[in-house]
Amino acid sequence: MSNIDSFSRLCAQLAKLPGIGRKSAQRMAYYLLSQPPEQVEALADAILTARRTVHECRVCGNYTDQDVCSICADERRDGSTICVVRDPRDVAAIERMRDYNGKYHVLHGTISPMEGIGPDDIRIRELLGRLSGVREVILATNPDIEGEATAAYIARLLKPFSDIKVTRIAHGVPIGSDLEYTDEVTLSRALRGRTEL
Amino acid sequence: MSNIDSFSRLCAQLAKLPGIGRKSAQRMAYYLLSQPPEQVEALADAILTARRTVHECRVCGNYTDQDVCSICADERRDGSTICVVRDPRDVAAIERMRDYNGKYHVLHGTISPMEGIGPDDIRIRELLGRLSGVREVILATNPDIEGEATAAYIARLLKPFSDIKVTRIAHGVPIGSDLEYTDEVTLSRALRGRTEL
Repeated sequence: MSNIDSFSRLCAQLAKLPGIGRKSAQRMAYYLLSQPPEQVEALADAILTARRTVHECRVCGNYTDQDVCSICADERRDGSTICVVRDPRDVAAIERMRDYNGKYHVLHGTISPMEGIGPDDIRIRELLGRLSGVREVILATNPDIEGEATAAYIARLLKPFSDIKVTRIAHGVPIGSDLEYTDEVTLSRALRGRTEL
Repeated sequence: MSNIDSFSRLCAQLAKLPGIGRKSAQRMAYYLLSQPPEQVEALADAILTARRTVHECRVCGNYTDQDVCSICADERRDGSTICVVRDPRDVAAIERMRDYNGKYHVLHGTISPMEGIGPDDIRIRELLGRLSGVREVILATNPDIEGEATAAYIARLLKPFSDIKVTRIAHGVPIGSDLEYTDEVTLSRALRGRTEL
């Protein structure tokens, strides 16, 4: 099969998808060739349409096909609280929990000197432009080096706004896990972050 | 995000791919939205082009973008031996081994009464039309119920052709595996199929 150019090209393109290796890509390619053309066209069309119509919300940066996303446009949601996350998929994760009623701000990245990503390369300036009427900014970037650095950087920037509370999501032992198998850093964070009962 | 139609549609389409669940599909969808449009168009184009240009070889049924595939067209390959397999991907697997120099015949399925697939639904008639000059037919369908039934069916059909040797690939303990962990059926086949040293 590798002598068929269009097949190899399809495998190479599919192998660029996250989590897809050479073997899975080949398996998908064979699957696509065995499907009716309408089916395959529906996939290609869904890919192109989504990429064409979905863009960043003008306010929060989340993905939307409107000018302003449905969360920003929802007046029943508390506009005085902004939860800052790295990616649109983090918004989806928090929304799934159905427990947060504030708004979001999507940075589309984290500060990473190693990869040459500075504060101006992510949507920090846009966050500063949204602070009127805001009472709490929850920093919900990932608990990794870049996420922590980004949270610390934003916390410092917001320091002068004395009427805005800046919080960080709690780090600790995940529910359902076992103390014995929890790594030391997490355990140390869980101890330091202990709350009175 | 689930309120964005084109995003949900993309996730649903991706989740139809083999081995891709809801979570992987969502991860891929987010990835595609974050890529430059050219990149995404290249994927969609590779999908459509492959589906449009790749079809079954007129002779053996393997995938090709020519009228006759490169294996059938290759005169250095031994046309007196035909290896019968279920899928084009089985041809690719055998070709990877670089040890087989005959031709192929792709059935595009196996007989499966459970799924309503009978002998006329797979490329058995086409195989019978290729027998002039053939001296050996190797039945290399999978060692599962459908594969065995299909091999037995074809062997019976070829019985009257007394000058054609009909063989079945060996079943036994896979190289590198452990007798202790080999299932009984495989072990029993390995014993029955023992060869003299």
